[in-house]
Amino acid sequence: MQEIITLKHGEGAKASYNLVKEVFLKKLSSPALKKLTDAATIGNLVYSCDSFTVDPIFFPGSDIGKLSVFGTVNDISVSGGIPKYLSLAVIVEEGFLKSDLIKIVASIKAAIRAAKVDIVSGDFKVVERGKADKIFISTSGIGEKIKKANPSFKSIKNKDKIIVTGSVGEHGISVMLARKKIFEFNIKSDCQSLNSLVTSLWMKFPQINFMRDPTRGGIASVLNEIHLGSKKGIRISEENIPVRRDVRAACEILGIDPYYLACEGRAILVVPDKISEEVLKFLKKTSKSASIIGEIDKGAKGVVLNTVSGGERILDFSHSFNLPRIC
Amino acid sequence: MQEIITLKHGEGAKASYNLVKEVFLKKLSSPALKKLTDAATIGNLVYSCDSFTVDPIFFPGSDIGKLSVFGTVNDISVSGGIPKYLSLAVIVEEGFLKSDLIKIVASIKAAIRAAKVDIVSGDFKVVERGKADKIFISTSGIGEKIKKANPSFKSIKNKDKIIVTGSVGEHGISVMLARKKIFEFNIKSDCQSLNSLVTSLWMKFPQINFMRDPTRGGIASVLNEIHLGSKKGIRISEENIPVRRDVRAACEILGIDPYYLACEGRAILVVPDKISEEVLKFLKKTSKSASIIGEIDKGAKGVVLNTVSGGERILDFSHSFNLPRIC
Repeated sequence: MQEIITLKHGEGAKASYNLVKEVFLKKLSSPALKKLTDAATIGNLVYSCDSFTVDPIFFPGSDIGKLSVFGTVNDISVSGGIPKYLSLAVIVEEGFLKSDLIKIVASIKAAIRAAKVDIVSGDFKVVERGKADKIFISTSGIGEKIKKANPSFKSIKNKDKIIVTGSVGEHGISVMLARKKIFEFNIKSDCQSLNSLVTSLWMKFPQINFMRDPTRGGIASVLNEIHLGSKKGIRISEENIPVRRDVRAACEILGIDPYYLACEGRAILVVPDKISEEVLKFLKKTSKSASIIGEIDKGAKGVVLNTVSGGERILDFSHSFNLPRIC
Repeated sequence: MQEIITLKHGEGAKASYNLVKEVFLKKLSSPALKKLTDAATIGNLVYSCDSFTVDPIFFPGSDIGKLSVFGTVNDISVSGGIPKYLSLAVIVEEGFLKSDLIKIVASIKAAIRAAKVDIVSGDFKVVERGKADKIFISTSGIGEKIKKANPSFKSIKNKDKIIVTGSVGEHGISVMLARKKIFEFNIKSDCQSLNSLVTSLWMKFPQINFMRDPTRGGIASVLNEIHLGSKKGIRISEENIPVRRDVRAACEILGIDPYYLACEGRAILVVPDKISEEVLKFLKKTSKSASIIGEIDKGAKGVVLNTVSGGERILDFSHSFNLPRIC
């Protein structure tokens, strides 16, 4: 039996991580790629790319156009760059409505304005009916490195606090609800540009050790990536994770753990203990739900969640969720 | 009746040109994008992107992996940059053979070595069976601008000579033959890195006014782009266009005009008359089929072909060919 690629390999959790390591990193290893960061830092440039295959392409609060801009912009921001230039490569299925393409391009336009970036390079391809699902968009982006910002797994230290910049899971749940045509909730995607917030953070608090936006695989996956990258344990206090009540309710109906749901406008920060309250205060000015959710704990084996009910469980890379094409 | 996107919009000819202008450029116009060059020049950077949806993914002489590296590398080279860093975003259909993915990554590895570039950023997505055709790859790339090289449509002058660096059409015909499972020809794709040849050209002959690689739409489309961009007529001598005999024979069987076939390792140069023989001599050292195929001719209305039989015909953007997914 020949091994095949499954949806699991694309979910941003353990199977993805292992496949990328085995198939891509072994062969294509460059110093920048090996770091497995959201964006590569080359001299004074920060460079990143992403493909977007979200289904459906329009969902409450956003669409594939905005997502493809903010996804790449945010990867550059959390990696310590000020996003400047984007490339945009579009693959469309024959028969796609021109009016939908125009709508998506208008949304891209609004997004590049909000994120203060320019699209400077593009490509457009069409494949036969049935050979792609409506539209896929790949973006890449170049940012200018903020000199003071030097995030890295290696900088992460014991007792560092873990902060999330806002409530989690809205993007993922809004896409799932739209896909399943469940309309009784009014949950919009959190899809937004982190450019100005994160640039301010880097300027004001260059001591921040690490930042990542919890997209595919949600905060659970990012926390596990931080654990693997830093080789340090993490302890999270469940009661401090900001999840909106309606998001929790929708998750219960769909049988999904909100910690595995993608966010598209949030960042997880790893911050030295002594500036953590100050960082939180700064974040609270624009995002009331910003929260210190846990800390680096050398005693913890993996990512440990202190549950609301007083117990303890391991928040692993999910092995069993099934959320393809969330971004 | 609502307007839809058709395969024609993806073929790199007039319909593509018009759609890109109408839908993308109007909304997303940035100074770099408006120039409609193969790559954007920003300060000392040259930046480009491309998506690859070629069908079949393996074809004589190359595959989607090599193509996705050389496609972007060559766009940077002809635009006056030395390619340095690539990003690689891969979309795979569920059920794709892992062994094929490994083969493609090995091919990418060989290609980045040949082109002397590093992959520094990547993304990997999986979509459900039937929602994509095997594998699509998007690459973007950053090059270092060669200071002396300043190609632009505006620099093109009357009497400039038009040179092609080698025989045309091998890539396109090899893909078409593989797709139609016609095996009696032994034509390999010309897919190769132009990095070292073109860098040498720019260093030795910075007076070259313009360069473009004739990919989608072939030399006919590039000549028309040069005509539209420079607002100058072009006269081509058909007998000087290097097309291999077997390529011509295969084209006749398939009913295709070789001038519309994609090349993936050739460049069209627009060169001041007085250095044209010297440039040709330089090219002939490594490519015997390099040829001066015509010139900028202010008297010509569009792209005029002096045919082998002594007549004259307009070599237009094709309105009627049907060669989707050639790259």
